[in-house]
Amino acid sequence: MNGANNTHEKSFRPEEGLRGLDRNGALLALRVRSFVKEELGVDWQGKRLLLAFSGGLDSTALLCLLLALRPLERFHVFAAHLDHGLRPESGQDAAHVRRLCAAWGVPLHEHKENIRIWAKQEGTGEEEAGRTARRMFLRETAKAVQADWVLLAHHADDLAEDILMRLIRGTGWPALGGMRGCDPTSALPLLRPLLMEEKSTLRSLLERHGIPWREDATNSERIGRRNRIRLDVMPLLKAENPSFLDSARRLWRSARQDELFWLAHLEELFEKAEPADGDGILLRREFLQNLPESVRLRWYLHVLDSLRNSQNVGSRGGQNRHSVLLALDRALREKRHDRRFQFGGGLEAELFPGGIVFRRVRPDRT
Amino acid sequence: MNGANNTHEKSFRPEEGLRGLDRNGALLALRVRSFVKEELGVDWQGKRLLLAFSGGLDSTALLCLLLALRPLERFHVFAAHLDHGLRPESGQDAAHVRRLCAAWGVPLHEHKENIRIWAKQEGTGEEEAGRTARRMFLRETAKAVQADWVLLAHHADDLAEDILMRLIRGTGWPALGGMRGCDPTSALPLLRPLLMEEKSTLRSLLERHGIPWREDATNSERIGRRNRIRLDVMPLLKAENPSFLDSARRLWRSARQDELFWLAHLEELFEKAEPADGDGILLRREFLQNLPESVRLRWYLHVLDSLRNSQNVGSRGGQNRHSVLLALDRALREKRHDRRFQFGGGLEAELFPGGIVFRRVRPDRT
Repeated sequence: MNGANNTHEKSFRPEEGLRGLDRNGALLALRVRSFVKEELGVDWQGKRLLLAFSGGLDSTALLCLLLALRPLERFHVFAAHLDHGLRPESGQDAAHVRRLCAAWGVPLHEHKENIRIWAKQEGTGEEEAGRTARRMFLRETAKAVQADWVLLAHHADDLAEDILMRLIRGTGWPALGGMRGCDPTSALPLLRPLLMEEKSTLRSLLERHGIPWREDATNSERIGRRNRIRLDVMPLLKAENPSFLDSARRLWRSARQDELFWLAHLEELFEKAEPADGDGILLRREFLQNLPESVRLRWYLHVLDSLRNSQNVGSRGGQNRHSVLLALDRALREKRHDRRFQFGGGLEAELFPGGIVFRRVRPDRT
Repeated sequence: MNGANNTHEKSFRPEEGLRGLDRNGALLALRVRSFVKEELGVDWQGKRLLLAFSGGLDSTALLCLLLALRPLERFHVFAAHLDHGLRPESGQDAAHVRRLCAAWGVPLHEHKENIRIWAKQEGTGEEEAGRTARRMFLRETAKAVQADWVLLAHHADDLAEDILMRLIRGTGWPALGGMRGCDPTSALPLLRPLLMEEKSTLRSLLERHGIPWREDATNSERIGRRNRIRLDVMPLLKAENPSFLDSARRLWRSARQDELFWLAHLEELFEKAEPADGDGILLRREFLQNLPESVRLRWYLHVLDSLRNSQNVGSRGGQNRHSVLLALDRALREKRHDRRFQFGGGLEAELFPGGIVFRRVRPDRT
């Protein structure tokens, strides 16, 4: 446990709101508030917020800031804690979370899952099983407390790591700009209020106010790509540019702008799409061939996404999907017709002389 | 010197063109040709090509491939070598370059410069002085041989490093996608035919044909950001994704597509700009405020570039310019008028109630 020293300058009293924090803490809380409201465009006033609360530094800082903002925003704060049972200390983590929620008067929903057994039963890795269990638990709890938003404590250091991970994987623009600040359309409406703040700022907030948190020992082990990126690559990049996190934030902001631009642009184009074969979507050749390649490829994606959303199908495919789209576009340009291209999630495109039809794969045709 | 062993399977005979290479070498040459012609859209048939030839692995491989393609493309190949005089072996590098050009019948232009003295006189670093001297020498030589293109031997490993360097610096999209494959508009019309090829492919080509090259010992020292990225960061990223170079190439390609898209889009918008104050450009508020932020910011850049090009002013400013543009846009949105914003290269923007005027700074106003 960290931060439980008695030399802190001010102790945090959640009932006092912003005045429960020191000056820098209050400024931080207001900055987070304006990020959520102005930059993400999310009105959380009076809303029901469910925090995914591990008891670690990041989510403890977010809980503290939420409570400080509560009198101003009059939202309702709930906490959800999943005990993965993976580390020997996980019981102590849960006890700590319970203690802090009790002290701060935050309703806590907790659940214990033996991920190791679960992973074995499902035949997946423990990391994957942990993610799935966490998502299920958050979804159920969000439903139980009627949450408007599920809050995650990702911060600017996480964002920079995420951008690097995406670069390594070969993610295209604008997704390369990193995780979303809010995602109201997903099954779990996610909000990341701390995304522009550095971890060091959060640590200092907790230390100054004598707020304890739990260290996750596995964070300092080189297991999993994210940990290796954090421990080995990030320090090198920060050594080259001490304000590398500023670069990451700037990239994130411009990616968000471009995302909005493309969304509007593609929605406008979408009026040119026609229904085909009942459930399919036809894009006509004479229209497609006049589009810049960059628009055409994004438009295919947009059409695939719209088919996928309407059918509630799973994963988006990633790299493989990208290569198939390139092959499809090449075939279109080279007028190689009457070919079909398969995408993940049971979707396909068929190339005719007149254009491309995107549709769900019909069982009788595969 | 490397590669000068006698166990190679086939020795390179430039007069035989593609048949002077083994099968993989010929395929590589044809891939490079189609990258230049189809992907970069550069017709180099019959053109005068000047190669920046250090005698290292990369430029030696490029020279070899050019000579193999020469009978097919009937271009004229010249080599330019600058002896920086920085390393004790630089004289041997020059001798090696001379020997190879003589053996392969390539007209060589060489020049010796004492960069160390030059840097002292100019009060700059040796790296910066070396770059400037190299650029000047290439420009003069290009003029002397009436070159249509100056060829640089950057390859996919360089590209991946470049993308990382840009990410660290905080470069926006699409420039984040890395160095250009060709840049006909610059003072030195540059072409990078090897940009999609991996260094290991080039090394193997030279080894298989017993072609010698010179190792630059400073490449393995941790001096300069580029070397540190190459030696320390790249191996970590390749360990996470062995096909990381594919990610880099894919990113580069989509950046080029987006670059074309934005260029066309902004050129179209440019018709809405009006002349102001003789040499200035007026963007009207009623038009600007209806544009998405992502378009508006890129349009400012486009207008600044057009002013810069017409006046032939130097550097583009980078990060600082980006912050000034954000401040300008914010002032526009918040209707804080009658303010001026200074950019690098003697350019400014003035905010009026009716819009923004971009112009060169007039001496009587500063």
